[in-house]
Amino acid sequence: MAITRFGISLEKALIERFDSLIRKKGYANRSEAIRDLIRDSLVMEEWEAGNVETVGTITLVYSHHTRELADTLTDLQHHYHTAIISAMHIHLDEHNCLEVLVVKGKGKDIRKISDRLIGTRGVKHGKLTVTTTGKHLK
Amino acid sequence: MAITRFGISLEKALIERFDSLIRKKGYANRSEAIRDLIRDSLVMEEWEAGNVETVGTITLVYSHHTRELADTLTDLQHHYHTAIISAMHIHLDEHNCLEVLVVKGKGKDIRKISDRLIGTRGVKHGKLTVTTTGKHLK
Amino acid sequence: MAITRFGISLEKALIERFDSLIRKKGYANRSEAIRDLIRDSLVMEEWEAGNVETVGTITLVYSHHTRELADTLTDLQHHYHTAIISAMHIHLDEHNCLEVLVVKGKGKDIRKISDRLIGTRGVKHGKLTVTTTGKHLK
Amino acid sequence: MAITRFGISLEKALIERFDSLIRKKGYANRSEAIRDLIRDSLVMEEWEAGNVETVGTITLVYSHHTRELADTLTDLQHHYHTAIISAMHIHLDEHNCLEVLVVKGKGKDIRKISDRLIGTRGVKHGKLTVTTTGKHLK
Repeated sequence: MAITRFGISLEKALIERFDSLIRKKGYANRSEAIRDLIRDSLVMEEWEAGNVETVGTITLVYSHHTRELADTLTDLQHHYHTAIISAMHIHLDEHNCLEVLVVKGKGKDIRKISDRLIGTRGVKHGKLTVTTTGKHLK
Repeated sequence: MAITRFGISLEKALIERFDSLIRKKGYANRSEAIRDLIRDSLVMEEWEAGNVETVGTITLVYSHHTRELADTLTDLQHHYHTAIISAMHIHLDEHNCLEVLVVKGKGKDIRKISDRLIGTRGVKHGKLTVTTTGKHLK
Repeated sequence: MAITRFGISLEKALIERFDSLIRKKGYANRSEAIRDLIRDSLVMEEWEAGNVETVGTITLVYSHHTRELADTLTDLQHHYHTAIISAMHIHLDEHNCLEVLVVKGKGKDIRKISDRLIGTRGVKHGKLTVTTTGKHLK
Repeated sequence: MAITRFGISLEKALIERFDSLIRKKGYANRSEAIRDLIRDSLVMEEWEAGNVETVGTITLVYSHHTRELADTLTDLQHHYHTAIISAMHIHLDEHNCLEVLVVKGKGKDIRKISDRLIGTRGVKHGKLTVTTTGKHLK
């Protein structure tokens, strides 16, 4: 993997505040922290484009007492099985479940699946998180 | 579980557009969709308070070739083992891994753990998603 | 303006927490608060579509000492004068200025103008805020 | 103003994609673009702290036909006059007005003012945007 090294100029007062922020966040050094800011801006752009293959996680919290909800979620997941590559189920307490699905596909398709799942009756809270296949984020 | 029924007044043009949006998102009816908007506003408030027990997922994409990264992540996860209640690992391709951790605790503690993990050298992209224990979201 | 009245069903515990949140935020009643949640979801959708005429504000903070910055900003604003419908300038202190521009146009065009302005050398911080023409938000 | 110059190391593939993104956004060079990412992360932290003096804009869209709304907004603005440093009013069409207020104060106070204004009956859409006094963002 080819590494490029280049210089950047920053006002002293600015980089001092940044150093203090990244120390608090546990970064080893500036390059690491700046790399993360750069990657995050690229992931956002990828996602907004809508047509690039990307990866997301869909987080759902629901009560397993809601009749037929588990069945509906399972049906939906099978319907979209080519996109949903994995799922994890957690028993938060005796009533509440959390399910995290990992989804791969074009941004706009992932959003569609997410909307369908979050909109299912009985889902208390749902969130779509966008990340990346990692392929183009060397 | 006690259900309350109440009436709300909305401009006709507004509710027609909302009906069309929620149909697109797959909601069964208006109550479902409005419930979700309400729950989302409560989850946001819970999270901003910082001191309420809540649940989040931390999504990490990294290359398993980065020497010692997997070890560091494992160490960190054990260090925070009382908060991290589950983890799922996915092989995105021969180089890239995705790991989703489910974390439970006060908002500010979850953010701290997330910052530490995302800031680890070799993590390409990381995201913290906030959801809820579901307990107070009947 | 035609008003529709309809009933929604919510769990008692949920609506009690929502009532407490909206009291804190100063809403007169539930209808008001729910209307705002609904409008916000419609504005988000309008914006994501990219092709609907909408309104945004671009907030810029910069030091007026940066040579040529004011000129560049003025030039850019004139270049986009059909879209930029108003501007307000504030002297934050003896060094810093804040400028708020109101922009009207398709979502994707507004974003382009915003990117150009925020990317101008000397702008310390910039933010695009999306709102609405109000026309379809009765 | 003291300038610091330092080197950072990035994977070639990553910096190439970043170069293409910042060209699209109109940045003059990498230093400019990275400075903006850094400043944005500092503004976010300042805002989350809640106790640092900062600057925000509150954007409101409303119909001037709503009886008493304009009066209420004026009253509220006078009540918070030490914080609201400026306002701009725009006639979007014959029914709709847009008002942008510039507010200065601690993060948590700005949010309170924003909540009160956005929650006012007749406001169709409201948004709080956080920026900075510019003082510590050299």
